[in-house]
Amino acid sequence: MSKASQEGMTAKKKDNFDDWYTQVILKAELADYSPVSGCMVFRPAGYAIWENIQRATDIEFKKAGIANSYFPIFIPERLLKKEAEHVQGFAPEVAWVTQAGSSELDERLAIRPTSETLMYEVVSKWIRSWRDLPMRLNQWNNVVRWEFKHPTPFLRSREFLWNEGHTLFATRAEADAERDEILGIYRKITEEFMALPGYLGRKSKTETFAGAEATFSIEHLLPDGKAIQGPDWHSDGQNFSKAFEIVFVDQDGDKQYAWQNTWAISTREIGVMLAIHSDDKGAVVPPMLSETQVVLVPIVNDESKKAVLAESRKLFERLRRKFRVKLDDRDHLTPGRKFNEWELKGVPLRIEFGPRDMKDRQAVLVRRDTGGKRVAKLASMEREVAKELRAIQASLLQRAAKALAEETRDAATLAELKRILSEHGGIARVPWCGRAECEAKMKEETGGKILNFPIGQKAPKAKCIACGADAASIAYFGKSY
Amino acid sequence: MSKASQEGMTAKKKDNFDDWYTQVILKAELADYSPVSGCMVFRPAGYAIWENIQRATDIEFKKAGIANSYFPIFIPERLLKKEAEHVQGFAPEVAWVTQAGSSELDERLAIRPTSETLMYEVVSKWIRSWRDLPMRLNQWNNVVRWEFKHPTPFLRSREFLWNEGHTLFATRAEADAERDEILGIYRKITEEFMALPGYLGRKSKTETFAGAEATFSIEHLLPDGKAIQGPDWHSDGQNFSKAFEIVFVDQDGDKQYAWQNTWAISTREIGVMLAIHSDDKGAVVPPMLSETQVVLVPIVNDESKKAVLAESRKLFERLRRKFRVKLDDRDHLTPGRKFNEWELKGVPLRIEFGPRDMKDRQAVLVRRDTGGKRVAKLASMEREVAKELRAIQASLLQRAAKALAEETRDAATLAELKRILSEHGGIARVPWCGRAECEAKMKEETGGKILNFPIGQKAPKAKCIACGADAASIAYFGKSY
Repeated sequence: MSKASQEGMTAKKKDNFDDWYTQVILKAELADYSPVSGCMVFRPAGYAIWENIQRATDIEFKKAGIANSYFPIFIPERLLKKEAEHVQGFAPEVAWVTQAGSSELDERLAIRPTSETLMYEVVSKWIRSWRDLPMRLNQWNNVVRWEFKHPTPFLRSREFLWNEGHTLFATRAEADAERDEILGIYRKITEEFMALPGYLGRKSKTETFAGAEATFSIEHLLPDGKAIQGPDWHSDGQNFSKAFEIVFVDQDGDKQYAWQNTWAISTREIGVMLAIHSDDKGAVVPPMLSETQVVLVPIVNDESKKAVLAESRKLFERLRRKFRVKLDDRDHLTPGRKFNEWELKGVPLRIEFGPRDMKDRQAVLVRRDTGGKRVAKLASMEREVAKELRAIQASLLQRAAKALAEETRDAATLAELKRILSEHGGIARVPWCGRAECEAKMKEETGGKILNFPIGQKAPKAKCIACGADAASIAYFGKSY
Repeated sequence: MSKASQEGMTAKKKDNFDDWYTQVILKAELADYSPVSGCMVFRPAGYAIWENIQRATDIEFKKAGIANSYFPIFIPERLLKKEAEHVQGFAPEVAWVTQAGSSELDERLAIRPTSETLMYEVVSKWIRSWRDLPMRLNQWNNVVRWEFKHPTPFLRSREFLWNEGHTLFATRAEADAERDEILGIYRKITEEFMALPGYLGRKSKTETFAGAEATFSIEHLLPDGKAIQGPDWHSDGQNFSKAFEIVFVDQDGDKQYAWQNTWAISTREIGVMLAIHSDDKGAVVPPMLSETQVVLVPIVNDESKKAVLAESRKLFERLRRKFRVKLDDRDHLTPGRKFNEWELKGVPLRIEFGPRDMKDRQAVLVRRDTGGKRVAKLASMEREVAKELRAIQASLLQRAAKALAEETRDAATLAELKRILSEHGGIARVPWCGRAECEAKMKEETGGKILNFPIGQKAPKAKCIACGADAASIAYFGKSY
């Protein structure tokens, strides 16, 4: 263990969220800083979480008929400029390659901040007829956005990992029908795997992705009262297909532009998850995603040592067939030190096994999330562990959902919105007429923004808090990370 | 299907390997060119091969206790320069980021050509005592080497995908013991999954990786008579640990430098695999790795159509539980057109199922590699398909091994070596004293190079073909891709 992590947590989640968060990430050995300003290192325990997210998500993508692919990381400048809004959105954050070996390049190459422009230039050559559609492609890759705000591991890193889905359809109806499928996958991954509740809805025009017609997102709430965007799905309409001449011949023999969507979940979501679940003892990682699900700590005295270790190994061999389990039989550390270390690292379940347990054919199960202890019989240990892991997973989501609900408040007036955000932070539900002027006014008055608004809601019986006209929807509003 | 692939193969493997290879890759829709000079696009069928290689390899890595991680893609120039030989080896091929947004960076950032320097700078902070060792890390990522030779999809691309393993040990003995484990994994993946035979051995000093003490490789032979390097493993000794101060306290309380290894398999290997197995009809992909293992083509006439399609779907549903299978029920293409398309794309096994087969409760299995046909009963189709796929997999390796053996010749003199390489190409086995001068002489006289030499061989009873002194080993020699 490195020096930093040999010391336990000192910062408190309530008192100083930023310091606390950084301590969790570094001391739990999930990530580290790097010698490259603003870029982070994913340590094995942190990368394993991403691998598990990726695996679970990829299974869903494959079931949906989406194919993985890989496109170059470089985008020639002229391509990036082909869709006007898109380049405007990304140009301030692009890292540029200008030299190779000892040569200056003729044209600058952008490191992809996202791959629309490069992919669509290539894909336009693959599509000729309606039979080639739908074409649903995905990439799992790294992207770079040279943000100048304060970098934070996972939450804001100049290089991050994500999936970028890019799909093409023959009709708007088919393209739109993908929305619920993809957001359903993201909802499943965030809730069932990450134990993260969130608000799903559409972004306002102002907050829509550069180059898209509509953006939908899942919005989360950080423990410091700031909202943060999770996975998203964008309807691009024909914006890109017109810029990149993605044309197909339809069943009547007419040329048509394809309808496109894009969607993503990124490693930022790991930061959201750790921030929400972890506590003053260190990381709390949901069992579905943690590198290690169970740590088995033998507790020995001199006379029992050999027998307890032998039994522990047997139990370990049984459990490893079903779980990601570690046996901590290091003999230079006390059980207490081990408990602290694995709590810091966020292993969901600890099994303590001593001479007395051996005699009674049982072991003690200790939950990381609640600290709750109970005794379980060795004979049925697989079932008991599975049950406990399920309970932990469910409880993390419940607790986070309760916190989100408690920190979501209704604001019927602009003054109320202001008060809510300054006194509590969190998320406010605000009646809104739908106009950009009113959105701008709310933003100016409060420093927050419209996160998204659920679609398919009946027009609420309420007045826009900015202009007093009839509200078109209730929007989620908050200060944003 | 895009325009290019609607046309079948025209080039012949024997007559014009380069054109033939490019046709296979493009027409089978495995990869495509990109608007970025020298960088390729992995299309879904090509990327699926990499996913399958990655999955199989990663299972072995995890069994060996190797942990995945992710380090930034950027390497500050000062870091890249820290190990002198290493930077010399890579500097001519580095792509440099010099600007971000509208700012010039203070220091150029290299896009990683490999991650030694960045990783070791970070890892040095994680290691304090012998208890922190061994530390065995891996990354699956993208790297960039701005080569100026003619780019070829998979075989030579400025950006490619790979694994880079980086491991640290307390003693040289432990570090060296890793060699057979890692090369054993690579041997398994190349032989059992890619169906690729190769020569395993040590590289000469001249050909050793920049910054390493010793390099071991698996060397393959392309159908055009050129040798090409496959996966490799490098012993770095303490070169990097001294440059990066990777120091630990040993069990006696003394400070020691760590012993390091690195190792890699890249997407280049996919090109080797396709070049070796494919034929004049298009791609041939081993069943263990192909995106689609089996294509089921119903053959219908007007009266049987409904029944045959219904039965085909039933068979498809059965097979998809065990295999990666496609049902090609497109009704605008003739069976012949479909056969051609799937042969071009390299699907290992085709099942033809028509009205007569339906009546006889059977189907026709057609092998992609040999064209061999046989009838199999519907009742036992899972078993029959599994058997056939195993047979194809085994036969591809056998055939490639036979070709490699036939194209490996003994050279007892320099004149003989020259003649072999100019008349046949291929690989020659040459007695060599082990000296760099003799290696240089052979190279100069023939245009080939020492690929590697098996270790642990008894000193051969032969004379070095360059100097006439006693040979220390029999080396593999060839013109190299």
